Amino acid sequence: MVDGREAMTSRTFFDVVLNQRATRQFAERAVDDSLIELCLEAAIHAPSAENLQPWVFVVVRDAGLRSKVGQLTRRAWRGGGRQHSANRLPPALLHEVDLGADGGIESAPVIIVVGGDAAIGLESTLPSSVYPATQNLLLAATSLGLGSAMTTLATLFADELREVLELPPAVVPMAVVPIGWPTRPPGPPRRLPLRERAHRDRYGAPWS
Amino acid sequence: MVDGREAMTSRTFFDVVLNQRATRQFAERAVDDSLIELCLEAAIHAPSAENLQPWVFVVVRDAGLRSKVGQLTRRAWRGGGRQHSANRLPPALLHEVDLGADGGIESAPVIIVVGGDAAIGLESTLPSSVYPATQNLLLAATSLGLGSAMTTLATLFADELREVLELPPAVVPMAVVPIGWPTRPPGPPRRLPLRERAHRDRYGAPWS
Repeated sequence: MVDGREAMTSRTFFDVVLNQRATRQFAERAVDDSLIELCLEAAIHAPSAENLQPWVFVVVRDAGLRSKVGQLTRRAWRGGGRQHSANRLPPALLHEVDLGADGGIESAPVIIVVGGDAAIGLESTLPSSVYPATQNLLLAATSLGLGSAMTTLATLFADELREVLELPPAVVPMAVVPIGWPTRPPGPPRRLPLRERAHRDRYGAPWS
Repeated sequence: MVDGREAMTSRTFFDVVLNQRATRQFAERAVDDSLIELCLEAAIHAPSAENLQPWVFVVVRDAGLRSKVGQLTRRAWRGGGRQHSANRLPPALLHEVDLGADGGIESAPVIIVVGGDAAIGLESTLPSSVYPATQNLLLAATSLGLGSAMTTLATLFADELREVLELPPAVVPMAVVPIGWPTRPPGPPRRLPLRERAHRDRYGAPWS
């Protein structure tokens, strides 16, 4: 491996996993195919039911197609997503998602649409196979210094996504992941303390 | 951090993500709470819809409860899962899953049952939040040298799992993850080449 690549791929697992954040605004700087390839390699190493690997990745670089995918996110956000979230999200996060849905996602030089192929794996097992692969993709991007985000709004328009990307009918769109260089370094993730979500032996018994 | 811990947590992200494998047979050696805590910390740093963190982790150490959870897996496997898989899985993998479902999972000193709380997050967004967190958990275990596996068979018996673990009705069991020291070092994962699953701009156009 060349020097730069080695530095980029040398982050420890825990450094990466504890510092993943969603990026919704991207710089214009191009992202090399070799970096996307590393992200995809990470993705396809996820576990899957019966090791059937029922995931589908469409790497969208074409500006016209990216815009179409972005428009679907905007439509889902304006057509109900925003209303659902408006009173629930902290104002700063709502603002961030607003910007993301309104052009931020399509500003990413790469959008990866992730699907599950029901002709390969049982439809009921697609989520437990496809989302782990998607998470690997996001973590790999984080590891390389790239910004990314797990978004699902546009998948409400599955038929439109199928049409835009010429997906076979059996492919279920499950995530839309923008990837690019972040405009600013993401801050630390905000998470509830572990004790709020972890239990010992029975629900409600403190983990520690 | 102490020496041993530092060595265990120093693996690079790509070394971990490219070498994750399912473990279904576990050694009797105990697993310290501090290692489980690291796995859970990784898990709760996953992204989630609206950052609602709708995941629930029940760390099952009690042998009686582990056995009950294991029995549900066995029931799902014998009651249909095996028949579905028998003609589809390579014989070696079928044998491995046979052993896992027939006592292997409950032989793990720790079983983490992962749920999604529909009282916290919209039920439709639970999979895209809970499975990334579960994948973080599995990767963290891999990073620490622990064996683990994403299993979902037992979640077919959601009501029984709720009863055994005293889960509230709104908690949807989504994965059962055995964790322990592997009896033998897992081999490299077997995966299709990237070009079989990755496309450029439109489905069917080669990624590279």
